[in-house]
Amino acid sequence: MADEKQFVKDVADMNEDFPRWYTDVILKTQLVDYGPVKGTMVIRPYGYEIWEHIQEELNKRFKATGHKNAYFPMFIPYSFLVKEADHVEGFAPEVALVTHIGDTPLEEKLVVRPTSETIICSMYSKWVQSWRDLPLKINQWANVVRWEKTTRPFLRTSEFLWQEGHTLHMTEQEAREETLTMLEVYREFMQNVLAIDVLTGVKSEKEKFAGAVDTYAMEAMMLDGKSLQAGTSHYLGQNFSSAFEIKYLDRDGQLKNPYQTSWGVSTRLIGALIMAHGDQRGLKLPPRVAPIQVVIVPIAAHKEGVNEKAAQVAATLRAAGIRVELDDRDQSAGWKFNEWEMKGVPVRLELGPRDIENGQAVLVRRDTHEKSFVRLDGIAQEVARLLDDVHENMFRCSHDFLHSHISVCKDMGEMKEALDNKRFVKAMWCGCRECEDKIKAELQATSRVMPFDQTPVGDKCVCCGKPADKVIYFAKSY
Amino acid sequence: MADEKQFVKDVADMNEDFPRWYTDVILKTQLVDYGPVKGTMVIRPYGYEIWEHIQEELNKRFKATGHKNAYFPMFIPYSFLVKEADHVEGFAPEVALVTHIGDTPLEEKLVVRPTSETIICSMYSKWVQSWRDLPLKINQWANVVRWEKTTRPFLRTSEFLWQEGHTLHMTEQEAREETLTMLEVYREFMQNVLAIDVLTGVKSEKEKFAGAVDTYAMEAMMLDGKSLQAGTSHYLGQNFSSAFEIKYLDRDGQLKNPYQTSWGVSTRLIGALIMAHGDQRGLKLPPRVAPIQVVIVPIAAHKEGVNEKAAQVAATLRAAGIRVELDDRDQSAGWKFNEWEMKGVPVRLELGPRDIENGQAVLVRRDTHEKSFVRLDGIAQEVARLLDDVHENMFRCSHDFLHSHISVCKDMGEMKEALDNKRFVKAMWCGCRECEDKIKAELQATSRVMPFDQTPVGDKCVCCGKPADKVIYFAKSY
Repeated sequence: MADEKQFVKDVADMNEDFPRWYTDVILKTQLVDYGPVKGTMVIRPYGYEIWEHIQEELNKRFKATGHKNAYFPMFIPYSFLVKEADHVEGFAPEVALVTHIGDTPLEEKLVVRPTSETIICSMYSKWVQSWRDLPLKINQWANVVRWEKTTRPFLRTSEFLWQEGHTLHMTEQEAREETLTMLEVYREFMQNVLAIDVLTGVKSEKEKFAGAVDTYAMEAMMLDGKSLQAGTSHYLGQNFSSAFEIKYLDRDGQLKNPYQTSWGVSTRLIGALIMAHGDQRGLKLPPRVAPIQVVIVPIAAHKEGVNEKAAQVAATLRAAGIRVELDDRDQSAGWKFNEWEMKGVPVRLELGPRDIENGQAVLVRRDTHEKSFVRLDGIAQEVARLLDDVHENMFRCSHDFLHSHISVCKDMGEMKEALDNKRFVKAMWCGCRECEDKIKAELQATSRVMPFDQTPVGDKCVCCGKPADKVIYFAKSY
Repeated sequence: MADEKQFVKDVADMNEDFPRWYTDVILKTQLVDYGPVKGTMVIRPYGYEIWEHIQEELNKRFKATGHKNAYFPMFIPYSFLVKEADHVEGFAPEVALVTHIGDTPLEEKLVVRPTSETIICSMYSKWVQSWRDLPLKINQWANVVRWEKTTRPFLRTSEFLWQEGHTLHMTEQEAREETLTMLEVYREFMQNVLAIDVLTGVKSEKEKFAGAVDTYAMEAMMLDGKSLQAGTSHYLGQNFSSAFEIKYLDRDGQLKNPYQTSWGVSTRLIGALIMAHGDQRGLKLPPRVAPIQVVIVPIAAHKEGVNEKAAQVAATLRAAGIRVELDDRDQSAGWKFNEWEMKGVPVRLELGPRDIENGQAVLVRRDTHEKSFVRLDGIAQEVARLLDDVHENMFRCSHDFLHSHISVCKDMGEMKEALDNKRFVKAMWCGCRECEDKIKAELQATSRVMPFDQTPVGDKCVCCGKPADKVIYFAKSY
């Protein structure tokens, strides 16, 4: 009992102090730890396995849409960064620079990649000669470095892991289609793997990627009403291909610059799923990326045959491709229940002498705490079905939460009230930077995306009151 | 025909100029390219997919032996490197140092990891408190940086990809067992996945890892008779755990430093498989890591039904989990044969109108060029069997080549002759550093490993002629 209280005591109340709840949960569940260098994180095995499942699921989707993985060097000559004007302006202040090897200074300082457009373009300019070489569709999984002032594990760290797709196309239309295809791949992945609903659309000029023509993004609502940019897909036009002199000989005998895209998601997604699904007891992991999908807790394990039967059930589930942990440690069942709830395991399977006698087991869902009795015959199918149910319910909750926390606002007063109530704001916007800056300064909210559905919700700018024809979401954000 | 000559012309004769053959082959087959920064490489999709299969196969084995993956930051405070005396001496001259973020100098310069013992130990010292926390068995997949003077893609590059396992144990015995278990995991992987035979054993004091008590290694023989260190497994004793003050409370109430291991293989393995298996026509990829296991070349593809049937066979093979490429490009069959031979695809499947009429296809093995006719019914099983045959034969060739190219030598004269004839040397060694240095200076050969089987092959040192009781291999090496 002392231990049980301990668990509750160690995690802050999410309604009172959401940031502390987040930190408590990620440290206590051993997803992550702080690295020795400011702003860095160690992704511990329980967190890293979530990333491995994210990688598997995304790789499947990237390959199905015709992309191949590759690996480009992490060190970029400083001169490359400077080639695209907006790009260097966006990234120069926060890049880590390698200046020495041992005691020896380098002739040209090297940038540790904050993103790889420049180095990849330098290679593409060697590889692409003819229209036959297009489209070129490559993805890489890599670590990147951006030195941020305020950091928080998974959400914003000096070094993080991500994937970055970089593609070249003959026409603007094809490149724009690729940009939207990958945004849709991300959205579908969020829904069907992470069980998170998102808003998608295009970013304002102010918020777009340094060097892009257009940045599309998906925004997820965290349980504190803040928005988290969960992934971006950029249409780069010919900005980089002309700066890096990528040219192909077209069928008509002309040399042309191809049109380009890039798109990425990162270990930030782990932060997203924690803050989109968690509760007072801790994590609530979406089943399709949970390192442990089912934990088996033997009841009265000292009784003859209980541990043996539990091991047998574990083997049956594993054989069906389910990720199982059998917790046969020498602790009370209650203590284990608390620990695995905090760790967010989607389904708990309890098995005691009476259950074995009756040829059944008890399943308890993490999302609703609902209990059910199932026959041991055919247990694998039952568990698989329940995991799907948990997924569906978690997505439905995410969807409902998002759509019930959006306010349509007409002016700054309504907007302030909505934001104070931890809601997203849907509003009309005149399109000028000054209004975005004012909203940021007065309400600490930023424009998130302009949705594809631009059905007006008014005709005046929520900020300046002038005529406005852009539908846009504003929110406080991570 | 012009094109066919072209292929041969573009690849140097491996017997005349092995290094150029290697460079020609890796560039022409688009495994890799040079990065813009000296000594870096770009791993192109055809090379990277080999790495992905290596990762899958090793991950299976690491998990089966109780290891979990994690990710530690790439930036290490310089002060960490200095804590273990041998370690800093070994690595300090070749580490890349981050000194600035944008224009701002850092208070403490950061080392880009050349290996992660130090940063991992700093975390382990936080995580390990009790004997219950042991053993701790973590692996990470990461990029590392070691600035080398002479570089060659895959073999030695400023940045490379690898895995590094880092484990802690309560007893020396358990740590030593882990060290040897992982060496055996590597050896079995080399044999059953890369089809390469290796020599295993312990390194001399001179050649061991900076900071290890004992370094075990596997050495593979390349086709030019040089040795390539393909993987290492280190018993670290308490060197790092005491330097980093990792302490656990044992059952007896005493605080103790655990015993440690680390072990790794890298993208170097791709270099190994190229130089262990290739031939005058180019690559010969071991089937279990080949990105394309079977290439289907339609014959007389303009004839009705040929491309359709080829697509159908491709689908059948894919459904059976075989990695297939259907080459329906508008080129001659002969041109395609040459290209796919150069790219090392283990099996070619030819399918023409006559074959379709007869309900058969032609299979051609890359390793022996042997041709066989197989029925289209049950083609997937036939191809799977043939891929296994190709693997077995490639391993047998590697095994025979290694064991027929080892000379037992009694003195420096015999040793010189053996090395000149591109052979490994098996010899007795007195154990002193001076003899190793002399052999290196006079014959450009280094000690590779002392095998586990120490049955003497003489009683005098091959170099100084004094009494010797150590059996050891010498070779020129990469």
